[in-house]
Parts: sequence; structure tokens; C-alpha cells
Amino acid sequence: MAPGGPAEKAAEGKQSSKESSIHIPNPHFEKMKEDILYHFALGTGTHDFPALFGDVKFVCIGGSPLRMKAFISYVAEQLEIGSPSNDFPNICAATDRYAMYKAGPVLSVSHGIGMPSIAIMLHELIKLLHHSKCSDVIIIRLGTSGGIGLEPGSVVVTRQSVNATFKPQLEQVILGKSVFRSTHLDEKLAEELMECGKELDQFNTVVGNTMCTLDFYEGQARLDGAICSYSNEEKMKYLKAAHEAGVKNIEMESSIVAAMCHLTGIKGAVVCVTLLNRLQGDQITSSPEVLAEFESRPQKLVVYFIKKRLKKK
Amino acid sequence: MAPGGPAEKAAEGKQSSKESSIHIPNPHFEKMKEDILYHFALGTGTHDFPALFGDVKFVCIGGSPLRMKAFISYVAEQLEIGSPSNDFPNICAATDRYAMYKAGPVLSVSHGIGMPSIAIMLHELIKLLHHSKCSDVIIIRLGTSGGIGLEPGSVVVTRQSVNATFKPQLEQVILGKSVFRSTHLDEKLAEELMECGKELDQFNTVVGNTMCTLDFYEGQARLDGAICSYSNEEKMKYLKAAHEAGVKNIEMESSIVAAMCHLTGIKGAVVCVTLLNRLQGDQITSSPEVLAEFESRPQKLVVYFIKKRLKKK
Repeated sequence: MAPGGPAEKAAEGKQSSKESSIHIPNPHFEKMKEDILYHFALGTGTHDFPALFGDVKFVCIGGSPLRMKAFISYVAEQLEIGSPSNDFPNICAATDRYAMYKAGPVLSVSHGIGMPSIAIMLHELIKLLHHSKCSDVIIIRLGTSGGIGLEPGSVVVTRQSVNATFKPQLEQVILGKSVFRSTHLDEKLAEELMECGKELDQFNTVVGNTMCTLDFYEGQARLDGAICSYSNEEKMKYLKAAHEAGVKNIEMESSIVAAMCHLTGIKGAVVCVTLLNRLQGDQITSSPEVLAEFESRPQKLVVYFIKKRLKKK
Repeated sequence: MAPGGPAEKAAEGKQSSKESSIHIPNPHFEKMKEDILYHFALGTGTHDFPALFGDVKFVCIGGSPLRMKAFISYVAEQLEIGSPSNDFPNICAATDRYAMYKAGPVLSVSHGIGMPSIAIMLHELIKLLHHSKCSDVIIIRLGTSGGIGLEPGSVVVTRQSVNATFKPQLEQVILGKSVFRSTHLDEKLAEELMECGKELDQFNTVVGNTMCTLDFYEGQARLDGAICSYSNEEKMKYLKAAHEAGVKNIEMESSIVAAMCHLTGIKGAVVCVTLLNRLQGDQITSSPEVLAEFESRPQKLVVYFIKKRLKKK
């Protein structure tokens, strides 16, 4: 199937006319009497979505449930929501597939590792936002990644999410056939986040392409997995070709964020810290303390961005 | 790249000569001085792997960390290991990426959702088993799935894991090029597990093909995701074609289990319960109590199998 199938065309038409609301490019959706968001353990028949989530404007997502729990406490402290001793309950406590926390206009959700895992979460999240009648929502992924040619601890704001051949597209298999979707991200939002990194001036922040892979070991040219069939020279040639194609970092979820936000008219962004420089090695050898400080950097940048946006209103 | 690349050929040669040990088809592996299993928060420089894991014979893996914790308590009770009040600590407590528990010869590990997530876990698990000098190890995935033409609650023992076009192969992207790997599973092990289901005689157990997809919504022909571009007729035509190709159920991890076990000389199996019949609908509407009982079925079958195997020695 060529790029620009029915879902893609419907999305483009809707986006221009009604930019701020959540578009669901699914003709069957409105016919559903009840919607069970199975992996969140939430449902329209059992939960009042507009009351619970209607004020959400910023959805921050990341792999680890514990990191997303820590993030909501940091958000609450910085936005002065609730008392410092407040505990934010896990809204999805009835399942351990994903964790979800809320503080004011900010929703913090974990997505696990890899595109299939984050895709399930995003399908159910986007339906949740639609059921809740949310508008002007931004989704930002805060993650970790392997850097290419950057000092570890650098923060990369993604300009384009590219695949393993450095193309800005995502292959989606539908009814056994491949559809190629655009992984276009909102340029202005990326610029705004980059500007926040500069103003914050606490760590190296760059804008660039992010390669999104289906595998951490062989898919990212590592030599230290249980299976490896290429030489160090072949690995370095591949990573240098990625570098030349403008790839600043490698992770495993950005293409889904880009493709699904694009199709549903949501502004999306990806902000990842690099835990190592892949031109220097494969193993993540920094101490837990150093890694924890690195992991806090996308959080700092994104909270700075949220505060700035809220002040403008 | 054609099927049967260097890793595939090396695996075949090794398997015939030394069937019971863990083969690592990676020429760089033996040169590593230290190995940090980052996503387990374990390492050869900090942990005595043979002392911790040397006696492991059965590795049981499943998506949910809570389910795998409950499983180890059930194993311990059934194999009469430790006192009933014993708590089994999470061996990977320093991270929340994966959870790992051990009781005697049984290791229970969570793998999250989807092939990229389980692949990371299996790379690190297989290296762990090799470092621990384990032999005669069996890896069994215990999971949930959507059934095709089966009453909900049926347990499917996978004969072949097939892709979205019903072929028994896995596309693995390496250095930007596609390699197609065999998803052959151990036939005798599948038969033995099927026999256990018959002897146990507590629920419907069948042997058949399992379709493994990269996506839960569009990838499995659901109409209830945030994005859908096909009609109900197209969906039903696809699911019926899968049914005719011998597909009994659909999940998101079996192909990686099959391919990686095959390449490393480990006997692998996949045992999943079906939560719904996809020819009847898309949403999982059973009560939490019914779903919990369904989810216990693969556990019952696999523990019965482990007890039977241990009695034979």
C-alpha cells in the first residue's frame, strides 16, 4: 500500500478545519456504545472521563513507571499543585501494564519498551483524551537513548524520527499488508523545546534526527547481545552513516509517537537524554547516580516548557 | 538478506554437537571482560551468576511483573520449596524494566508487551544463563492472547509462530537490512505440553499456530482503536484467512521466543490462554475475576509439566 491511505487522508482533512480537538480517524468509533480501555483498566461505562481528564493539556510519557511517578511529584512541586507531602495515586492501579498519574493539567503515563508497547498505550490514551473532550493537547515523550557523536548526558529534541534506513517513515502492517506512515513531528514545538533548553542552560541540548528501531541489540548495531553476526567495522560503518544522515540518537518509540500524533491532529514531541556515545561503545557503564541525574534532564526541560506555556496564558 | 545468515549457520552447527548447553552465536562475546545486563541491573563484575542461577532448568516468562511474582509463589507451593509464608524477592529490584523471581530450578521473568520488549529481556536472559553455566534449560512463555474460533479460556500450545501473512518467519532488521529468521519451536516439547493439558483435564487445551503481530489494534484487525482504515468485512475476511491457515490465537511475542531459542540451542515453548474469540468481537469484556481465572490456566499447565519432568529424574 502506498503512503497516504484512507486514515492518512481523513486525518489531513480534519486537521486543517479543527486543529485543536482530538481527531479519531476510525469510522467505527462513534458507533461504540461503551469503550473499555483494557490496558488502562478504565472504561466509559465505569469512569467519568470528562470529569477525570477534561482539563489535561500536557501528556508526558516515558518508558518506566517509577520514573513517571517521580515525574508527577516533580511537576506538582514545580507548578505548586497540592501540598509537598501529597501522594499522587496511580489512576491505572487495577493493572500493571501501564501506570498513570495526574497533577493539574499534566498527565504522566508509562509506556514500557518498544513500539508495540507504546502503540497500545497511545491508542487507549488518544481515545481517553477524546472521550474526555480535551482540546489543545500536547504529547511529549521523555526518554533515554544512545547518542551518536554527543557527550553522554546530552538532551536531544527530535526534529524527525527516522527508521533503520534513515527515512522519516513508519511501516505499519495492517491486515497483513505494509502501510508507510509519515513520522513528521511538529516543527514549532521542537523549536520551542530547543529554546527552553538554551534558556535553562544546565546541560547540552541539541535538535536533530532520532533513529527508532525495533530492537536494542542487533537493531542498534550492538556487539554485546546474545546474537551478533557482523564485525566491528560493519557496525561502525553503519553508525557513521546514521551520523552523516543527521541522526543524533537512537531509541525505540519515537516513530509511533510521531505517526499517531500526526494522524490524530495532536502536537507531539520527543525529548531524550543520551546515556552513552555509541561511537565509543555499547554497554551503559555509568553509575546509577550519574544515570539518574541524566534521566532527570528531559524532565527539567519539559517542566520548564510547561511552566513557560502556562505563564503565557 | 536470505534466510540462513552467519548467526543462523553457526547456531545449526553448534546445536548438533552440544545440544544441552547455551550457545551464544556472537564472536565478540568471549572477548568481553565484564558484561553489564543493563535492563536487569545485574552484571558479571558485581554478581556471582553460577552461584545465583547455576541450577536453573525452567525459565517461565510472561508480560506482567505481578503475574510472574504470583507465579513463583504458586511454583514454590506446588514444588514444596520453602515455607508457604516465604516471600520471593525481585532479583532485578534495582530496575523496574523487568522483574525476576527464583524458586529452586524455576526462574520467573516478566517481559513487558511486544517483540522489542521481550527481545531485550531474552538477549540478557540468554547471556545470564550462559554466564551461569546452565544446561538443559527450557524457556516457556505463559501469556494471554486473542483466540480465533475457540471458546474464551481455551489454552493454546503453539506449534508454529507465524507472522501477519501466516508464514513461520520473523523479519529482523540488522544494520538497516532485513534478515528472515525461522520461528521453528521444539515439536516434542509442544506435544509434551499438550499431553499435560489432556492429563490435567481442567480446561480446553489445543495445539496450533500462533500469529505474532507488532500491534494490538490495527495489527490484529481490531475496529476499536484510535485509528482504523478498514471495514468490518475486510477485518472478518482477514481473520477467517488466518483461521484457515491454522492460526488458533494472536499475540505479540511468540516469534521472538521461537527465533532466539532456535539460534541459541534452547528448547522453547509458548502456552497462551485466549481471553476472547476474535470472530465474535474486539473488546475484552469478561470480569476481572473471570480473566484472572483464565490467566491462571497456562500457569497450572506449566507447573504440572515441571512437576512431571522433575519426577522422571
